[in-house]
Amino acid sequence: MSQAALTISSKNYSSWSLRGWLLCRMAGLDFTEVLVEMDDEARQELLLLSPSVLVPRLTHDDVTVWDTLAIAEYLHEVTPTAGLWPTERAARARCRSVSGEMHSGFHNLRSALPMNLKARHASFKIFSGARPDVERVKAIWTECLEASGGPWLFGTAPTVADAMYAPVCTRFRTYAVELEPQLAAYVETVLSWPLLGEWTEGAMVEPDEIVELEVEF
Amino acid sequence: MSQAALTISSKNYSSWSLRGWLLCRMAGLDFTEVLVEMDDEARQELLLLSPSVLVPRLTHDDVTVWDTLAIAEYLHEVTPTAGLWPTERAARARCRSVSGEMHSGFHNLRSALPMNLKARHASFKIFSGARPDVERVKAIWTECLEASGGPWLFGTAPTVADAMYAPVCTRFRTYAVELEPQLAAYVETVLSWPLLGEWTEGAMVEPDEIVELEVEF
Repeated sequence: MSQAALTISSKNYSSWSLRGWLLCRMAGLDFTEVLVEMDDEARQELLLLSPSVLVPRLTHDDVTVWDTLAIAEYLHEVTPTAGLWPTERAARARCRSVSGEMHSGFHNLRSALPMNLKARHASFKIFSGARPDVERVKAIWTECLEASGGPWLFGTAPTVADAMYAPVCTRFRTYAVELEPQLAAYVETVLSWPLLGEWTEGAMVEPDEIVELEVEF
Repeated sequence: MSQAALTISSKNYSSWSLRGWLLCRMAGLDFTEVLVEMDDEARQELLLLSPSVLVPRLTHDDVTVWDTLAIAEYLHEVTPTAGLWPTERAARARCRSVSGEMHSGFHNLRSALPMNLKARHASFKIFSGARPDVERVKAIWTECLEASGGPWLFGTAPTVADAMYAPVCTRFRTYAVELEPQLAAYVETVLSWPLLGEWTEGAMVEPDEIVELEVEF
């Protein structure tokens, strides 16, 4: 039998942990969760102060793979029929492109609107430096939904792109970001995703010991 | 016949353009180069102030793919025998992991030591915030070279990982970063790469009109 373990950190705060976990579940992988302690190294990573080599990290048989996109590609190799990427080549290239944009960019969005599944801010002033990021996210979603017909970014089932943008959907809820109806419907689709609900339940019972991180990363 | 075009910006300053170009050449793709003008949008991207949707961007037949890792995966699909990723599964997973780390991280390194192929700084004080990034790069290279035997990160030929770290090699030369012999030899391998030499020739003849960006990004 194959053995798999996914190392993650806070379910409330760590958006990369969420993405990696969603991908493993979408692939149908049977895995155990390993939580890293919120020690100084983990805090440094959450504060974006040092490179993360901690989470998410997947071990599967004799393979160790870290970094969210590398995990996605690995899972696609071992479960090619799970539909992690679209089956059509041009759509798959676009799906990888918008997933890559999330992976490499949007730093201002990530620092100004940190993921915090427990929090709700009804009126939140978005730092002006983060607005181009918000606009780019909206443009990506609009293009994808219009090309695919929705309700997911690439059609009738979630792909890697939806896992990559799922934490952004939770941020838009947390910080009450206004959206046109088509995009609000997409956010609702993601927030109603049973896998995201299952993860969120874990976040809700998480101790609040690291709540002081909230406004800093 | 297939038609391919790669959109890039400055050969002297744009590390992502360099990576995308190296990948296309490693894949043996026959493509034309399209240079974006250094207008305000391109400057914003080089200054890391707004999401890049400009460079690198590959169009190939009916496919458009942007974002460097998405381009790598696309090229691997269309030229699977080009050796962009290692053939062995566990090594391929590690190669994708370290490539993903470069793609998503090392922001302090990138802002403190910007790529500038024309420049040489014999004594350069590295911003303390960038030191964990430099240490992580050294750790990655050491692990890869010891596992593979070198001279490239994953063995006897360059892979995506070497393309991803090639701009870091040029930065270590530009800013005279001290390295142990094994890592200095790796940097020399990359700097002697004929493809990198070809790109650098293009940088050397580039007008200096954007030289004021040098210290800012």
